[in-house]
Amino acid sequence: MRTDGRQPSELRPVTITTGVNKYAEGSVLIEVGETKVICTASVEERVPPFMKGQGKGWITAEYSMLPRATHSRNQREAARGKLTGRTMEIQRLIGRALRSVVDLQALGERTITLDCDVIQADGGTRTTSITGSFVALCLAVNKLAKTTTFAKYPITDYLASVSVGVIQERALLDLNYDEDSKAKVDMNVVMTGNGKFVEVQGTGEEEPFSRSELNELLELAEGGIGRLIERQREALGEDAGRIGGGA
Amino acid sequence: MRTDGRQPSELRPVTITTGVNKYAEGSVLIEVGETKVICTASVEERVPPFMKGQGKGWITAEYSMLPRATHSRNQREAARGKLTGRTMEIQRLIGRALRSVVDLQALGERTITLDCDVIQADGGTRTTSITGSFVALCLAVNKLAKTTTFAKYPITDYLASVSVGVIQERALLDLNYDEDSKAKVDMNVVMTGNGKFVEVQGTGEEEPFSRSELNELLELAEGGIGRLIERQREALGEDAGRIGGGA
Amino acid sequence: MRTDGRQPSELRPVTITTGVNKYAEGSVLIEVGETKVICTASVEERVPPFMKGQGKGWITAEYSMLPRATHSRNQREAARGKLTGRTMEIQRLIGRALRSVVDLQALGERTITLDCDVIQADGGTRTTSITGSFVALCLAVNKLAKTTTFAKYPITDYLASVSVGVIQERALLDLNYDEDSKAKVDMNVVMTGNGKFVEVQGTGEEEPFSRSELNELLELAEGGIGRLIERQREALGEDAGRIGGGA
Amino acid sequence: MRTDGRQPSELRPVTITTGVNKYAEGSVLIEVGETKVICTASVEERVPPFMKGQGKGWITAEYSMLPRATHSRNQREAARGKLTGRTMEIQRLIGRALRSVVDLQALGERTITLDCDVIQADGGTRTTSITGSFVALCLAVNKLAKTTTFAKYPITDYLASVSVGVIQERALLDLNYDEDSKAKVDMNVVMTGNGKFVEVQGTGEEEPFSRSELNELLELAEGGIGRLIERQREALGEDAGRIGGGA
Amino acid sequence: MRTDGRQPSELRPVTITTGVNKYAEGSVLIEVGETKVICTASVEERVPPFMKGQGKGWITAEYSMLPRATHSRNQREAARGKLTGRTMEIQRLIGRALRSVVDLQALGERTITLDCDVIQADGGTRTTSITGSFVALCLAVNKLAKTTTFAKYPITDYLASVSVGVIQERALLDLNYDEDSKAKVDMNVVMTGNGKFVEVQGTGEEEPFSRSELNELLELAEGGIGRLIERQREALGEDAGRIGGGA
Amino acid sequence: MRTDGRQPSELRPVTITTGVNKYAEGSVLIEVGETKVICTASVEERVPPFMKGQGKGWITAEYSMLPRATHSRNQREAARGKLTGRTMEIQRLIGRALRSVVDLQALGERTITLDCDVIQADGGTRTTSITGSFVALCLAVNKLAKTTTFAKYPITDYLASVSVGVIQERALLDLNYDEDSKAKVDMNVVMTGNGKFVEVQGTGEEEPFSRSELNELLELAEGGIGRLIERQREALGEDAGRIGGGA
Repeated sequence: MRTDGRQPSELRPVTITTGVNKYAEGSVLIEVGETKVICTASVEERVPPFMKGQGKGWITAEYSMLPRATHSRNQREAARGKLTGRTMEIQRLIGRALRSVVDLQALGERTITLDCDVIQADGGTRTTSITGSFVALCLAVNKLAKTTTFAKYPITDYLASVSVGVIQERALLDLNYDEDSKAKVDMNVVMTGNGKFVEVQGTGEEEPFSRSELNELLELAEGGIGRLIERQREALGEDAGRIGGGA
Repeated sequence: MRTDGRQPSELRPVTITTGVNKYAEGSVLIEVGETKVICTASVEERVPPFMKGQGKGWITAEYSMLPRATHSRNQREAARGKLTGRTMEIQRLIGRALRSVVDLQALGERTITLDCDVIQADGGTRTTSITGSFVALCLAVNKLAKTTTFAKYPITDYLASVSVGVIQERALLDLNYDEDSKAKVDMNVVMTGNGKFVEVQGTGEEEPFSRSELNELLELAEGGIGRLIERQREALGEDAGRIGGGA
Repeated sequence: MRTDGRQPSELRPVTITTGVNKYAEGSVLIEVGETKVICTASVEERVPPFMKGQGKGWITAEYSMLPRATHSRNQREAARGKLTGRTMEIQRLIGRALRSVVDLQALGERTITLDCDVIQADGGTRTTSITGSFVALCLAVNKLAKTTTFAKYPITDYLASVSVGVIQERALLDLNYDEDSKAKVDMNVVMTGNGKFVEVQGTGEEEPFSRSELNELLELAEGGIGRLIERQREALGEDAGRIGGGA
Repeated sequence: MRTDGRQPSELRPVTITTGVNKYAEGSVLIEVGETKVICTASVEERVPPFMKGQGKGWITAEYSMLPRATHSRNQREAARGKLTGRTMEIQRLIGRALRSVVDLQALGERTITLDCDVIQADGGTRTTSITGSFVALCLAVNKLAKTTTFAKYPITDYLASVSVGVIQERALLDLNYDEDSKAKVDMNVVMTGNGKFVEVQGTGEEEPFSRSELNELLELAEGGIGRLIERQREALGEDAGRIGGGA
Repeated sequence: MRTDGRQPSELRPVTITTGVNKYAEGSVLIEVGETKVICTASVEERVPPFMKGQGKGWITAEYSMLPRATHSRNQREAARGKLTGRTMEIQRLIGRALRSVVDLQALGERTITLDCDVIQADGGTRTTSITGSFVALCLAVNKLAKTTTFAKYPITDYLASVSVGVIQERALLDLNYDEDSKAKVDMNVVMTGNGKFVEVQGTGEEEPFSRSELNELLELAEGGIGRLIERQREALGEDAGRIGGGA
Repeated sequence: MRTDGRQPSELRPVTITTGVNKYAEGSVLIEVGETKVICTASVEERVPPFMKGQGKGWITAEYSMLPRATHSRNQREAARGKLTGRTMEIQRLIGRALRSVVDLQALGERTITLDCDVIQADGGTRTTSITGSFVALCLAVNKLAKTTTFAKYPITDYLASVSVGVIQERALLDLNYDEDSKAKVDMNVVMTGNGKFVEVQGTGEEEPFSRSELNELLELAEGGIGRLIERQREALGEDAGRIGGGA
């Protein structure tokens, strides 16, 4: 039995509240258990220098934690004067994951920046950021669609993410912080609505893992991601059907 | 008439929600109109090097805005690698203001860090941060008081802050962003519960101001701060009476 | 009695020497007691990016102290790799204050940078920098006026600054370092030649202050600034009358 | 057929030259095709602050590319003043991977730093760095073992790494740069001598991948890693048998 | 007798291997005793901003040591976030020295960057970098000459560098690390093929030196540089005669 | 004839004013023609970490130019966030030069920091800094000597510095800025009172130089340095005889 009474394949309660920011083109507050992340999508009508003149858009992400999002206070990266490796790794992951379901050509020469600010952390902040950012991105694209005619709807599929891990030889879905710190194997999985993998990042620093453990973890993740995508559909409401519609 | 229909001496609606963070010793979400700030107070059982061995505590503050707290997205200071002058000035102000109502001797050799993270900005983020931080600080001290015996209750008085300014020759209380950007004179005032000034920072970059204008602004501020302190008392509930009690 | 024998409302001896730098368009060495600051005004025929194309000029300021300007040696900010919050706050203040008496439209699309380098510090370095910079700025504008036809003389009024404070319940003008470190209330005031306030920055970190104390301090400051402006007039010599003349 | 004539499951030629640095406790030059990395292992008789007093050792890694390791010259990170996200991600990966096969308790309170400097890059620099670092690490431990009595030999198993990817729907082992830039799916795999996974990092930014593709890639990787471990054994010579011996 | 058995005027063994990098326009591995430096020359068809529009080219250099190039490991400058003064001084020296034998007009509007990466250090890394870079530069120019018609061959003379020093009152050529750390006087000399000085940098931090000592050192250097230039000629092979040919 | 009418072997007018800073243990304003540098010597009763426990002292130097010390304004290094290579090179040179005439053992475990701040620059700022710093250093040591008993007077000889150069094939002493920018060969020389060289830094970036040119330059420098040391003696007054006295 898990400390919070969940079954091994059970997600924590998930809430996605849209429109939490009055300025951003898209915004959500996503809560997965006690992990809370504000995701905003900001649209700019220009692309970074390396993308100029290609007629394509760009999706990028930034990630940060409030200093007291965690048990003990962390120093701000702005005060340290540089980003940690962990932050850089996470924001690269979020950006890459979201780009996998965006038709950059269809988006046109504009940049959408996803800001993921962790208000409170209890494990799974990077996966929760991806799941929440996807909704913020859709909201921003839908807002754009009111004033812009896209040749094709630029979001090609749903996308969500969850963590899985092995504790005392049991595979568990959606680890909270306590579980995460005890896990021998830790894996973050990003999948699309049609059940394909976008990112699989498994690490067995404490204890290497076998192919069958890997498979068990991937199955758990698949189930969890399916349920997260249902929550995304609900959050998007009547616009839910546009994703992947391509028109 | 002001764009949002307020009287010149009227505050925007103020809400202070306590306990918004499960880890911090004290936390509030303060909303003043559309300005929203999360303030957390974190207690550490040590003081910075320059305070060591004096038997006294320390209060310090940090301030930041989420990138999309504003109309257009701002670059993160962590990404730029340094704090702006504006941020440094604000966090120095918040720390100094709060220290003025704390008996550092009574607090003992510990540091309380106030983190003010602006979730959404519509003018008055620094004054709102001070007003909210004061409550978070009290909550943290009250929590400490459960496990520590203070010779004296370390918070000596209430403290709140508001902005005032002159637009088209009228003195106005609690400027929102639109008003702030039109004001010829702009002043931030911090006062204690017994009606004394802790900080008066007035600037007439666009147009110098006379002594009588200054007096009119200070009176407006005094009224507004009185009402903000009422909100602080409500938020503190049954502990409201401990402040300044000295025992 | 003050340690240096001054009356409460007495300034320290003030000397303003012009033309101390052979390259700068305007330069002064200002000495207020033992506080010594070199102020240079440098003219560039361009404006910063955010001002481009508006047909207006810009005034900005930088402030620094030599490492041994103080009792014990301070580390250089260049060696630390960043400016302190105090420096940023001071240079923002100087720039803002000077802009309040410059008609940026009349100045035309050029930038004047005021560099205030404190050679020796004995209290009041920021106020002394403002008083000295004003003269350097006038000298630079007068030099410009020899080769440029201004539609209107761009400096609209005199501007000077002084500190005031409360020590042992007495209000004192122009604090030296010893007084400054004992003051319970500390205020910096910037005023124009016509007796209006440009900046009022009072702080009672050690002890909040009442409205009547504030008024007493402002009166002291007003007197001191009047006398500083006389020194500025003397330093400007026959050009003293152009300021505010508007033609 | 691949551009260099290899079979899909064929590694590029691998050479591991030991003792290439006269100062380092362990050193190799590893060449995998045209990718060339110098790996040195440096032993220090202390641990980082967060590990102090636990009686355990630490393994860490740093990674860098010479500016002209690549087709066009890259700016040095030292000149830019900060590490890129890519570099941080890679050096975190190398350190984590190596720690998974070291008994830090057995190592004792010392740090071994693996420096991976890419002299020439043609794809697979991070996996090559891991494979080469493992040998440098063993050499350093073997050198230590001459003067130190370990309760247990601290390296618990072999460890090597390879990349795999999907190009035109074919799974390929050990991508060179040209292949890497065309791959729709890209995966780095780290495995131990006993055939377990330490890291699986697959990304389908261009095109999500299915479970069966994932399995095919993992099988290719498994084969390749087995052959890389043979090369490591050869490089270690008569000491090859100590790894995992535990005594 | 020197510790390695050399005569006072004897160079260490010198090897210059060309073409060690498959991407760089010119590259060498230069070994002088146990000091080993990879020098690459990278050509870019643009010049830095301060050189634009003059119809002239630019030569610049960067220098770095691998962390374990030395007896004990050095922290990477990229990790420290800034270059040391020593590195800056060395790379300024290398660039300046090479420019003295390049006709920048003849080179045309392009930049050649010399990267000197010290793989192993045993004294004389800066002088060895200059000697090796010169060859890499010639190789790059010769490669350019195949696709570009130079009005004049842009390299005007040979250039090499060596260190000399005084140990126990004896002048010695080409100090290794042990000698360098014992030397009272230390001098780096850069000379051209026609026997003129480009740089003479002598320092007697431990003990000032007389004019006659200086002369003795310069004579030793002159002899050593002559022999280094012979090695450069051999490395350049049939292209050796183009240098200084001017056509 | 030189533009300012000097003979080739003539120094510019030299003035050394002592005691220009009320806090520093030693201070001078040195003027060499229009080049003006404030040099302060600050004593601290501790040594840097790498010198601890050796019973020896340390001498170090920092160098900076005010932004408008030059014809056009330079950006502050503090604002850029890092020192230029030129600054680092100069401050390393000043420190090294001064250490050559200090018996660090005799000085005892304390650090003297020489700050050289260029108020106005007209060529020769580094050599002028050395000449002025030497006097500031002596003043600080003399002040120390009043409260400390040195086993031996720690300054072992006089030390001064001058620049020389070749313009239109004529060797010239003490170049001003205009001359410096036209010189084909440029050399900075530091010598002791007994006529020995501490630093010889000659560079012929524009045109290599012969041994006889080198000799001619060194002779000019020798003459100039002799006259600078006379100025130092005058500035030191009755303490002039202590230098090198060793008791």
